[in-house]
Amino acid sequence: MSTLLAELANVLGEQGMLTTPDDCSRFEQGARYGNGKTLAVLRPDSHEQVLNILNLCGQHQQPIVLQGANTGLVAASTPDGSGRYLVLSLERLRKHIEIDVDNRSVVVDAGVTLQELNEALEPHGLFFPIDLGANPSIGGMIAANTGGARLIKYGDVRQNLLGLRAVIAGEPAQELDMLSGLRKNNTGPDLKQLFVGSSGAYGIITRAVLQVHRMPQQSATALVVPRDQAAVLQLLRVLERDCSEFLSAFEGISGAALAAVVKHIPSITNPFAPEPLPEYCVLIELSSAANKDVTGIDLEAVLMRCMEELFGDVIENAIVGRGKDLWRIRHAISEALRHEGKMIAFDISMPRSSLVTFRAQALALMAERFAWIKVMDFGHWADGGAHFNMIWPKDAEVAYDVAIVEAIRTLIYDLVVNGFQGSFSAEHGVGPYNLAYYQRYTSAPAQQLAGRLQTLLDPQRLLGLTWFGPAQSAR
Amino acid sequence: MSTLLAELANVLGEQGMLTTPDDCSRFEQGARYGNGKTLAVLRPDSHEQVLNILNLCGQHQQPIVLQGANTGLVAASTPDGSGRYLVLSLERLRKHIEIDVDNRSVVVDAGVTLQELNEALEPHGLFFPIDLGANPSIGGMIAANTGGARLIKYGDVRQNLLGLRAVIAGEPAQELDMLSGLRKNNTGPDLKQLFVGSSGAYGIITRAVLQVHRMPQQSATALVVPRDQAAVLQLLRVLERDCSEFLSAFEGISGAALAAVVKHIPSITNPFAPEPLPEYCVLIELSSAANKDVTGIDLEAVLMRCMEELFGDVIENAIVGRGKDLWRIRHAISEALRHEGKMIAFDISMPRSSLVTFRAQALALMAERFAWIKVMDFGHWADGGAHFNMIWPKDAEVAYDVAIVEAIRTLIYDLVVNGFQGSFSAEHGVGPYNLAYYQRYTSAPAQQLAGRLQTLLDPQRLLGLTWFGPAQSAR
Repeated sequence: MSTLLAELANVLGEQGMLTTPDDCSRFEQGARYGNGKTLAVLRPDSHEQVLNILNLCGQHQQPIVLQGANTGLVAASTPDGSGRYLVLSLERLRKHIEIDVDNRSVVVDAGVTLQELNEALEPHGLFFPIDLGANPSIGGMIAANTGGARLIKYGDVRQNLLGLRAVIAGEPAQELDMLSGLRKNNTGPDLKQLFVGSSGAYGIITRAVLQVHRMPQQSATALVVPRDQAAVLQLLRVLERDCSEFLSAFEGISGAALAAVVKHIPSITNPFAPEPLPEYCVLIELSSAANKDVTGIDLEAVLMRCMEELFGDVIENAIVGRGKDLWRIRHAISEALRHEGKMIAFDISMPRSSLVTFRAQALALMAERFAWIKVMDFGHWADGGAHFNMIWPKDAEVAYDVAIVEAIRTLIYDLVVNGFQGSFSAEHGVGPYNLAYYQRYTSAPAQQLAGRLQTLLDPQRLLGLTWFGPAQSAR
Repeated sequence: MSTLLAELANVLGEQGMLTTPDDCSRFEQGARYGNGKTLAVLRPDSHEQVLNILNLCGQHQQPIVLQGANTGLVAASTPDGSGRYLVLSLERLRKHIEIDVDNRSVVVDAGVTLQELNEALEPHGLFFPIDLGANPSIGGMIAANTGGARLIKYGDVRQNLLGLRAVIAGEPAQELDMLSGLRKNNTGPDLKQLFVGSSGAYGIITRAVLQVHRMPQQSATALVVPRDQAAVLQLLRVLERDCSEFLSAFEGISGAALAAVVKHIPSITNPFAPEPLPEYCVLIELSSAANKDVTGIDLEAVLMRCMEELFGDVIENAIVGRGKDLWRIRHAISEALRHEGKMIAFDISMPRSSLVTFRAQALALMAERFAWIKVMDFGHWADGGAHFNMIWPKDAEVAYDVAIVEAIRTLIYDLVVNGFQGSFSAEHGVGPYNLAYYQRYTSAPAQQLAGRLQTLLDPQRLLGLTWFGPAQSAR
């Protein structure tokens, strides 16, 4: 190991490698899960250094964990407790942001963060529209294929990825340059797709070309109380029919989650006062990047008209306008929930048509079997995503028990996957934290193929903590 | 062979296999290129039969060519002249069309055609928005990742593909069931991406889940004469700024192509009369699926306002309205060009920002070196696609010569790929017809990886005519 570290130090220079426990600690702790130990953090600032690292680690059979901005939620980018991984941080690979206004695209280094990218795009009236509650690196966003709250209008990362440069392991390691800024390009298998949503297990993403979008010129927001759960789908249907391409968010918020926000976030009060808090509500956003002076559209008036039409029949109450305040409620949910107790977070999805039935069945199951757990769910109905989060209250009569938490997870995931052809990981990806569920719910042929691909792309298993092949063939 | 055919006949039944030259002939001739010979056509009508075919062919090392509606333009779905391929037609695998209105998705058998799908969707106000000049099968569209004229608003096939079922070769052949209708699903590597745009070489697509869209409720069309070539990009910039999400087509038409339409299509006259035919024009379409009564938008008035603002500065003339007539001109180009002589068709793309410079350079190169060739180009500027088509006139002083045609192809492709980081196949894919260009322009590491993937997925090379690995390792 000391030979390898010396060789790496030689390649990376003083700035490029951290070895003291103090310097390393922020790379060892994940945003939600994962808390391990690394011997050193490698911080290349060029593509050549990435190649060199992979070659040296290959010669010494030294596995590495890739890390971007360390905001992942499945422990895929932090080392485990074994201390046998090196961390390869891409955070210094962030020099290059090259905007092509006429092509509405940008070439960007993997270590650039979403916020940095959007700050560079803003003077051109452009933005990268993946809307998240964190500030990840672009490489990490591609490795996790993040989705976010506005997927229904803009798609996920994959749908906005025009080009990619990746380094794959081998003797020697190789660079795959697929950095074209093309919207149409069907020249054989699209190899860049291999690296999207693969948690860094198939290769190291070093640079990307992204499609970017015109910034919205207007938006209209409403917080709406549906008559009942079936009315939520009815509302979505009417909005897609009447507002179609303007619909940019349709976020369900349970009464329990809203109550937690009002209770724990001092600056937020019941938006429906003097009415009591509702049993369920939906945050709706319409937006348009078109020039208001040319189109004459007034989206707030459009949204108001929709609400009036639905009033009494589909919806019981609606607040239109005050977009910032309404989004603050949505964004405060995660923090508010933590005040209630220990969070059991879910990131599931299913066909939109199944959301109502799933929610009813899941709530009934929980009430029947785990009555002391408080479900405080919210989610992205328009794309079928649901954060079916729960709280184990601080003062519950049953003491917190990880075995019970696992039983709850399995209960909910079984219902989602087997009952509704849904997903146990909608937008967070797969890592050590949820790999057991990957093994449980992925078909045997798919696991075999994923593992064979991983062996082909990384024969020594140098990259990452996640093995996508069948469990019995894990290292 | 006779043993294999007897076994196949046993599996497929009388309807499922064609062996007479008469019955086989329509499967042997490609839509544009490809004219070969097959011993028999296999026509399975179930997924189980597809599995059985692949297993039997594997036991006998018998290669097959996959065919959907046989509309491909790169000869990937017709047998070659060797007579050693069997054709596997998916045209009888077309029973299943299952629409989920609330999820805006449809489960569809691979053999269903685009037109059949859209007829089934129409009563629900939905459609699959990939707009093409042919009526391909859904499986073929996925295998080629088709794009079409409205990509800028709706994306390509990949961006609308939610799920897939594929059969891969092996001992035994295996079915990969990835048929979920999910917009967010990041549960490990997205294996279905392997089969998109891979010309059928990686596996047999038998069923898919597609995202579908609300049908437009209004559209507005204009045929516009830009001041010069630079003004085309300026026009695109203004339209994306002012009309943004409404822009659904932006099609360039050269003066030569327009003149050919007016000359050869009797029912079409110069739309700009009494003005002479322009040197270049652009077909613009705005569309919206939103309810006009709710939004109050009048797209024709919006488009008119844009044109007025640009008049004199960016554009010299514009016809607004008469959408059907204007699209007829666009759709008549290919037919009109054939009257002029032998077509040399191109399907290239590049960053939109390069289209003006490319066109000027390519026209100059052609005038200098191949002055008797008439360039009659048109293309999808909004997505960077260009059909830089040319005609070798019937009465040219130089006799038609395939070696010169190849020299022209290489000249143009070199400019596109090496000069502008563009693509030699934007939306038609890769097949025997253009495989030599794949080998010329694809990096060595990418060819190696594509070939290793093909060997992994189809170790006996049973599927298709196209080998994506390095040429020296071809069968």
